[in-house]
Amino acid sequence: MSSASSLPTPSLAIGIDLGGTNIKASLIDVSSGERKLSLSKPTLDGEWEGMVPRFANTVRDLVLALESQAGLGPLSVGLSAPGLASPSGRCIDWMPGRMHGLEKFDWPDFLQRKVRVLNDAHAALLGEVWVGAARGCRDVFLITLGTGVGGAVLSGGRLLRGAMGRGGHLGHISVLADGPLDDFNTPGSLESFLGNQSLQTRAAGRYANTHALVDAARAGDTLAQRLWQESVRYLAVGIVSLINVLDPERVILGGGIAAGAGDQLMIPLQTYLDEMEWRPGGQGVKLVLASAGEWAGSYGCVAQFLSDMG
Amino acid sequence: MSSASSLPTPSLAIGIDLGGTNIKASLIDVSSGERKLSLSKPTLDGEWEGMVPRFANTVRDLVLALESQAGLGPLSVGLSAPGLASPSGRCIDWMPGRMHGLEKFDWPDFLQRKVRVLNDAHAALLGEVWVGAARGCRDVFLITLGTGVGGAVLSGGRLLRGAMGRGGHLGHISVLADGPLDDFNTPGSLESFLGNQSLQTRAAGRYANTHALVDAARAGDTLAQRLWQESVRYLAVGIVSLINVLDPERVILGGGIAAGAGDQLMIPLQTYLDEMEWRPGGQGVKLVLASAGEWAGSYGCVAQFLSDMG
Repeated sequence: MSSASSLPTPSLAIGIDLGGTNIKASLIDVSSGERKLSLSKPTLDGEWEGMVPRFANTVRDLVLALESQAGLGPLSVGLSAPGLASPSGRCIDWMPGRMHGLEKFDWPDFLQRKVRVLNDAHAALLGEVWVGAARGCRDVFLITLGTGVGGAVLSGGRLLRGAMGRGGHLGHISVLADGPLDDFNTPGSLESFLGNQSLQTRAAGRYANTHALVDAARAGDTLAQRLWQESVRYLAVGIVSLINVLDPERVILGGGIAAGAGDQLMIPLQTYLDEMEWRPGGQGVKLVLASAGEWAGSYGCVAQFLSDMG
Repeated sequence: MSSASSLPTPSLAIGIDLGGTNIKASLIDVSSGERKLSLSKPTLDGEWEGMVPRFANTVRDLVLALESQAGLGPLSVGLSAPGLASPSGRCIDWMPGRMHGLEKFDWPDFLQRKVRVLNDAHAALLGEVWVGAARGCRDVFLITLGTGVGGAVLSGGRLLRGAMGRGGHLGHISVLADGPLDDFNTPGSLESFLGNQSLQTRAAGRYANTHALVDAARAGDTLAQRLWQESVRYLAVGIVSLINVLDPERVILGGGIAAGAGDQLMIPLQTYLDEMEWRPGGQGVKLVLASAGEWAGSYGCVAQFLSDMG
């Protein structure tokens, strides 16, 4: 036998990040973490093709396209989507209100492949751990700031899924017990003070979104400065609480708001942590921006096939 | 060989619960969870015998006494104590202010035995998982209500230790971002609204402790009723936050206050959870009182030798 034939065949898998707007699919080398090829198509939530949600057929098309371009037969698929993934990893068990047809949709059955389904925030964290800002961490959490506030936790090298897959809903911790109940009935949750959805209530529609708020604050708008400062302080309070519960090495800030605000988030946040973080022996937790980028989710879907993270 | 000689020798270990007041030591069968023999002695924190804290010599005496009464040679020892246990499990790394001489005290070296050191709340939870109210659970947390508010988390069948051993400090989550900073710099923490230490501030010294407060509330004292109701509501807010992060099957309430208050805690707490708990698919988390009793800690010290929990 030639020496070439004894080289290990790259172990490839497909990561699908099924989002509300787009479906991102990547062909990834499981051993090296290299992304070989990526494709993206619109989700078109709410459209059906017969009994099947259109996004499901699009996912199948993307899987076949990646396999065909790679010249390989059926590959394992990691698929992330909003909602709570079933303990079996075959489907999303719970996702009311949007992504019509996703709840209980059996992906291994539909794709006729080995498929493991993962919550989208869980996938984003595993992506950061594998190829991004949380590389090398065994205890770390991610908070995502976007429409709402999401998150995920890695504890002792393993994803914290919890009993029904809802582990890591970090936007739904209370930071103000007397505040109004949010969508999940949590009083005064972090999500009530951060993210684009609650901004309309907090700012009476004055800013189109948090980017606009942060820009206005930078330009000297005092209302915007006050609102942003309030948001960052509530976030700091949430983070110190979570540090005391989860004891991470690092905290990752992700989502469009964090990426857009950059230092305008990180500098005041660090100042609040200097005031409120419990630091036994003087050792503080490192705060960093997510760095795995738009393909984090598809990386994370594949990362769950690695023994330590899943 | 006779058939009797092929029976497995019971695998015995010693669990030591080194507390601020007493040291409780038990000889426990690791395979069955049976407690064979227990001894207790006062801690006498602050007393020294030469260079050694007196409690350390007492621990050695207790180990030797249990081994001698069992007629067995050196046994493995699990030892729990307040403070943060080192990742190596050889010592308590961090415990300022009391238990003088405990910080960095190397127990395997001193006892000349295999020793694993564990935080006391971590041990109490493992005790509940092994022989108490959390039996059979893989995702569960314990909140202890006593002088302060403590806790511990089991996630996916494993103790959540975290990066520096502080995982599960559930009393130090904020429930009121605008509240005063507690001992750990957390603003408006759960511990500020519950437990005997903060009661003196909250009630201006009117009640000797939470037992007295709960008794007064039962007898119709309206101030006591208001204070107790407030405490229970803050506790409920903390619990729903933690449920959204940790997604447990069960929540265990422990510590002297929970045991003493019983239904006066559990009934209003359940009512608040009915209002504020996120229940995907209608499924709520079960709330139960701790049941492993005063030896929970020494059970838990031994339980960490079991592969799944440690």
